[in-house]
Amino acid sequence: MRIAVLGTGLIGTSVALALRERGAGVWLADEDPEAARLAVNLGAGEPLPTEASGVYADVAVIAVPPAAVAATLAAAQARGSNGLARYYTDVASVKQLPVAQARARGCDMTSYVPGHPLAGREKHGPAAARADLFLGRTWALCPAPETSEQAIAAVTALVRECGAVPMRTDAVAHDRWVALVSHAPHLVAAAMAARLEAAPPEALDLAGQGLRDVTRIAAGDTGLWTQILAANAEPVAEVLAAVATDLAEAARMLTDGDPKSVATLLDHGQVGVARIPGKHGGEPREFTAVQVVIRDEPGELTRLFDAAGAAGVNIEDVRIEHSPGLPVGVAELSVRPAEAGTLLDALEAGGWPVRR
Amino acid sequence: MRIAVLGTGLIGTSVALALRERGAGVWLADEDPEAARLAVNLGAGEPLPTEASGVYADVAVIAVPPAAVAATLAAAQARGSNGLARYYTDVASVKQLPVAQARARGCDMTSYVPGHPLAGREKHGPAAARADLFLGRTWALCPAPETSEQAIAAVTALVRECGAVPMRTDAVAHDRWVALVSHAPHLVAAAMAARLEAAPPEALDLAGQGLRDVTRIAAGDTGLWTQILAANAEPVAEVLAAVATDLAEAARMLTDGDPKSVATLLDHGQVGVARIPGKHGGEPREFTAVQVVIRDEPGELTRLFDAAGAAGVNIEDVRIEHSPGLPVGVAELSVRPAEAGTLLDALEAGGWPVRR
Repeated sequence: MRIAVLGTGLIGTSVALALRERGAGVWLADEDPEAARLAVNLGAGEPLPTEASGVYADVAVIAVPPAAVAATLAAAQARGSNGLARYYTDVASVKQLPVAQARARGCDMTSYVPGHPLAGREKHGPAAARADLFLGRTWALCPAPETSEQAIAAVTALVRECGAVPMRTDAVAHDRWVALVSHAPHLVAAAMAARLEAAPPEALDLAGQGLRDVTRIAAGDTGLWTQILAANAEPVAEVLAAVATDLAEAARMLTDGDPKSVATLLDHGQVGVARIPGKHGGEPREFTAVQVVIRDEPGELTRLFDAAGAAGVNIEDVRIEHSPGLPVGVAELSVRPAEAGTLLDALEAGGWPVRR
Repeated sequence: MRIAVLGTGLIGTSVALALRERGAGVWLADEDPEAARLAVNLGAGEPLPTEASGVYADVAVIAVPPAAVAATLAAAQARGSNGLARYYTDVASVKQLPVAQARARGCDMTSYVPGHPLAGREKHGPAAARADLFLGRTWALCPAPETSEQAIAAVTALVRECGAVPMRTDAVAHDRWVALVSHAPHLVAAAMAARLEAAPPEALDLAGQGLRDVTRIAAGDTGLWTQILAANAEPVAEVLAAVATDLAEAARMLTDGDPKSVATLLDHGQVGVARIPGKHGGEPREFTAVQVVIRDEPGELTRLFDAAGAAGVNIEDVRIEHSPGLPVGVAELSVRPAEAGTLLDALEAGGWPVRR
């Protein structure tokens, strides 16, 4: 398989690395020659030969910001006599904008499969790329009505080669859904985090894991996120307006001494959060947490996992809470509920301080 | 040391368990005799003898909801000829309300040290209690002007016995700060999570770690949180109103096609989130993340931590991303930046698929 990656940022370079690991030949190009050179040096592929060379790829992956997708697609399809590739896909976080712009530019829509891998990092650029970035992640594919089944099959195969799980949908639904589960939450986290800017240090000393979790994604790349939010403005604005109304209403109810209505919002939140699927894509909250006190020294976690492994119990997730100024912490091990008893017995028998 | 714990929910029972482990004698009482009996059965202490017995504790820990603190304190101080204990403290998440109510009831304020451990869980009740709940956590102490230095010293010692880090402040500042770093974020998470209640399942299939983190705390106990929010209404309402204004403004700007102003909010969020101290209480972002591909089977994590331990590298934190439908996942190991190279070399030498 021969792939051309146009745009060697975090996502493009990660696609290139993933496909190289699977034996594909990869050509790399970027508007910024430095970024392309860095991706080549990282082992992500070879520089894309000039137009005169007449090279032709199976799929061209357009990994540029949302507003630049259509122009890049048009240029790639206009290359040489047959274009740069047989099929085309992109990775932008919004889908209606590039589709509409591609159609307006007269691009060939039969060979174009709009796509969006649900994967990312708080870092960006080719140096942050990882071949494993897409492992187990959903990768939305939003074919246009004109898109050919052959193009869909080829891009679906590429998605699977990256280790991702393809999910077919349409651009309108996609944009509405990611507005709800990704774009709006990003701005909500930012709006909460923005309140911390002027907080006294003593207030931040009282911060716990809750605040860290709520605000974590606010550390993302401002420039890219501004473009994403602008390109999905309507559905994002709709969610944000609803959240803003609920919060303004909660503020009013609190000031008016009417906490019952705040309870209603908390109840709705509880129902909503319970609907998010678990990490394994199955039922939410399918694991039991087992807490163990651990010392803060090399080898301690090895001994703990050794004890779990010897008992035949698979640790599904770990969360470690360190203790500033103390030589101990707490490891919270997530295991299947049926295995929690076995693990507790085994750890207790091994002298681990567990809490039943 | 003799302690009386009044209220055997999650926090009270955890205090009792922590102090029992340090050799203290603990008496337990709760309005709900079932809850008190369960705490006794968990080994948290003995039932509080009747008033006629004339027993006397060094410190009474009042671990009841915020609005019940003053009445419980008054009853305890009125017990027998000298009251139930020499000194008193409480653990409510708000401080001005119980202090004002205690003063209004004519409680002895010299022996009362209002307190608030910054620790909790999404579960509640004595069965969820943990002796290690307070390890390394900040525990705010907000003495009133009348509170005696002896009372402060005794309660500070109790806090340290629980493994927590005492932080002295005043009730007004405390309430304003926790409104910002705990109470308002809780409602913000709930308001975002509430939007998921009516979402189609396909939308939730697109949910990533970002949404999980933003909404996690919305799963907390609605009844208790309603009371906390009601008791800290003014400062919480102020933060919520500001967040609501920013989000409503962001929604308007998006609808009006003015993304530059959205960028400003994102920038402020980035500055705010960078101010949250790290888990170790030191500088934020002090660790380097090392990614390793792991198989989803018992013993795999043991082998990984073995390799790290053999290299003398201490793993500060672990985050595991599982891959639905795939036999592999990615372990992200947080280590001190100076140790990242050592760990990468050791893992690579051991045949682990790491990404540099």
